[in-house]
Amino acid sequence: MEFTELRYAVTDRVAAITFDRPDRLNAWTPTLEAELREAIRLAQADDEVRCAVLTGAGRGFCAGMDMAVLGAAARPSVPQAPSNDDLAQRYGYLGGFDKPLIAAINGAAAGVGLCLALHADLRYVAAGAKLSFPYARRGLVAEHGTAWLLPRLIGPMHAADLLLTGRTVMAEEAERMGLACLLPAEGFLDAVLARAGEIANAASPRATRVIKQQLRAARYQTLGQATRDADREIAACRDTDDFREGVQHFLDKRAPRFTGH
Amino acid sequence: MEFTELRYAVTDRVAAITFDRPDRLNAWTPTLEAELREAIRLAQADDEVRCAVLTGAGRGFCAGMDMAVLGAAARPSVPQAPSNDDLAQRYGYLGGFDKPLIAAINGAAAGVGLCLALHADLRYVAAGAKLSFPYARRGLVAEHGTAWLLPRLIGPMHAADLLLTGRTVMAEEAERMGLACLLPAEGFLDAVLARAGEIANAASPRATRVIKQQLRAARYQTLGQATRDADREIAACRDTDDFREGVQHFLDKRAPRFTGH
Amino acid sequence: MEFTELRYAVTDRVAAITFDRPDRLNAWTPTLEAELREAIRLAQADDEVRCAVLTGAGRGFCAGMDMAVLGAAARPSVPQAPSNDDLAQRYGYLGGFDKPLIAAINGAAAGVGLCLALHADLRYVAAGAKLSFPYARRGLVAEHGTAWLLPRLIGPMHAADLLLTGRTVMAEEAERMGLACLLPAEGFLDAVLARAGEIANAASPRATRVIKQQLRAARYQTLGQATRDADREIAACRDTDDFREGVQHFLDKRAPRFTGH
Repeated sequence: MEFTELRYAVTDRVAAITFDRPDRLNAWTPTLEAELREAIRLAQADDEVRCAVLTGAGRGFCAGMDMAVLGAAARPSVPQAPSNDDLAQRYGYLGGFDKPLIAAINGAAAGVGLCLALHADLRYVAAGAKLSFPYARRGLVAEHGTAWLLPRLIGPMHAADLLLTGRTVMAEEAERMGLACLLPAEGFLDAVLARAGEIANAASPRATRVIKQQLRAARYQTLGQATRDADREIAACRDTDDFREGVQHFLDKRAPRFTGH
Repeated sequence: MEFTELRYAVTDRVAAITFDRPDRLNAWTPTLEAELREAIRLAQADDEVRCAVLTGAGRGFCAGMDMAVLGAAARPSVPQAPSNDDLAQRYGYLGGFDKPLIAAINGAAAGVGLCLALHADLRYVAAGAKLSFPYARRGLVAEHGTAWLLPRLIGPMHAADLLLTGRTVMAEEAERMGLACLLPAEGFLDAVLARAGEIANAASPRATRVIKQQLRAARYQTLGQATRDADREIAACRDTDDFREGVQHFLDKRAPRFTGH
Repeated sequence: MEFTELRYAVTDRVAAITFDRPDRLNAWTPTLEAELREAIRLAQADDEVRCAVLTGAGRGFCAGMDMAVLGAAARPSVPQAPSNDDLAQRYGYLGGFDKPLIAAINGAAAGVGLCLALHADLRYVAAGAKLSFPYARRGLVAEHGTAWLLPRLIGPMHAADLLLTGRTVMAEEAERMGLACLLPAEGFLDAVLARAGEIANAASPRATRVIKQQLRAARYQTLGQATRDADREIAACRDTDDFREGVQHFLDKRAPRFTGH
């Protein structure tokens, strides 16, 4: 697949996926949707990639559904049906990506553009960026998994505030709500890529994969079930190369050389 | 019903419901309980009302159960049994109100007075107000839905802090815990009414009703279930007057004229 | 049991449990694990104890598993199997302790040392303390109940941040995340003990026991179920000595004399 509305680049184990319609504040289109899915598939399949960052070209992150598209009724079908029902939903593949996924919200993010970012593990937002879920102001309701993800992320009061008012919040207020971590606008993407690089190089890829599974599973488990799973996973670590390297590099006081095995 | 312990007034699509026993810091009585239920019923039934605000007359919001009542064993029975078990509980009708509900905590709120406010969608608190769940200091335990609502709102640690110590926190600490949003005491109620008015006039009443249902349902759903519900609700929006108006007023750059249909 | 790696002392109704391997930053050993279990059993059985505080001797709270132990594969079996599956897990007895449990994180806490603290009701952290879950950097995954407890405590984003990066956060950032409440390093333990003493002396031991049960049960209940349980528990309070004393000392404007009955 040739990308036309995003850019995909791997540097130092981090895949940077950049929405690339800057003249439209990277407003969402069916093409961009399909290309993001493909980019995540590439990052998933590439053993060299240990962390991925979503960001936007120009002043915006993603201004939401392109107004031209919002008028239309078209809805692309979900191409595959994984066994896990959560991951089978339209943007569920973002949650199913098994490497750390970071949203670098460089500028305005609205509607579906902000929904996407909720599926990431970490969200950074540049000072001055404006964020909103303006559904109620359009006669629309909470899209995709927003009514589920948002209250679990920022609590039911802030979720109700953002969704019932449809108001725009600045990055600073978004951080206070717990929606994203604030970073200065100057040097924003480099700062996020540095954090992505730290994960990619300091953390065992096997460990981050299992931890993501643990966090996903724990949503629907009792504490007892989650603890038994953890006991089993910890036991399974003991025979792995990454565990031996994790202890050894610490004792040797050197950078780790994890293989993911 | 003639109201004797609260005031009910509708202005510019916002119903203001004011507990009106200022000489007792609006301490809770069976009469006030019955009148609040009736006021919510009125606000629910009135198509002109698009948002409701609960507040207290004088210096307090609600000082908790009136001590005269606390000694007695009387407990009013729940008059009706809606099919949803959560809403069938004594104060469950507050959660079942299908328009945005805001608690404007103008002054002291304790015990049942603060429980009530947990059922609102949004809580604002005036600087200087004192808040507490003093149950443990009275030999009592967490009342009504507090043990369920509070940890989901402010996290299990802050919930344990407030409930196990029974201590009083100032509005400023309450905001840091995520219990309510802080506003200056000067002009407090006007500021809250302005926010209520913004919801009442800028948001589609149909959208806020459905969003409240989505948030309520998502408590007990998987992400997949919530997402499928959202897909169906979004599809249902497309044929509505409010969606057409939501897009049109945006393109026309004018205030919306939502009908709720 | 003679304690060799911790100290246990009861003062003014508060049991202080101090990990006592200061030359190793109180790193975790099978002996310390067994002694903590015994100390909690003592505190549970002693009617004079109304609150317990976990802390560390010297500069650290608990630096995680002792590296000597981390190399070994040994895993002590859980000695008993309570009926509640959550409490039956290796550190589940901390959650089953039915008096308020406070972690006083006086210094560095890492790995299992920080896991332990997640089971406490309240966590205080001394300014300057460093906290981490460095699992991913060791090729390990989230231990014990961490993948379940941590996202419920600080939200899924901060939990993913700490677990996927394995990075060390200072006490100040930990407070902003909601992991613990920050107190000055100077006089830290005295300040925590004062708060423990306030619970021990101002709150009904019967009430705190029931409130802890309510909070534990509410994790897996609907709002309706939790509310019905609360209604039943409130009714049960009315015939208790602690409720009568809770009202009487308030009317008499004197300190309470709760018996726990």
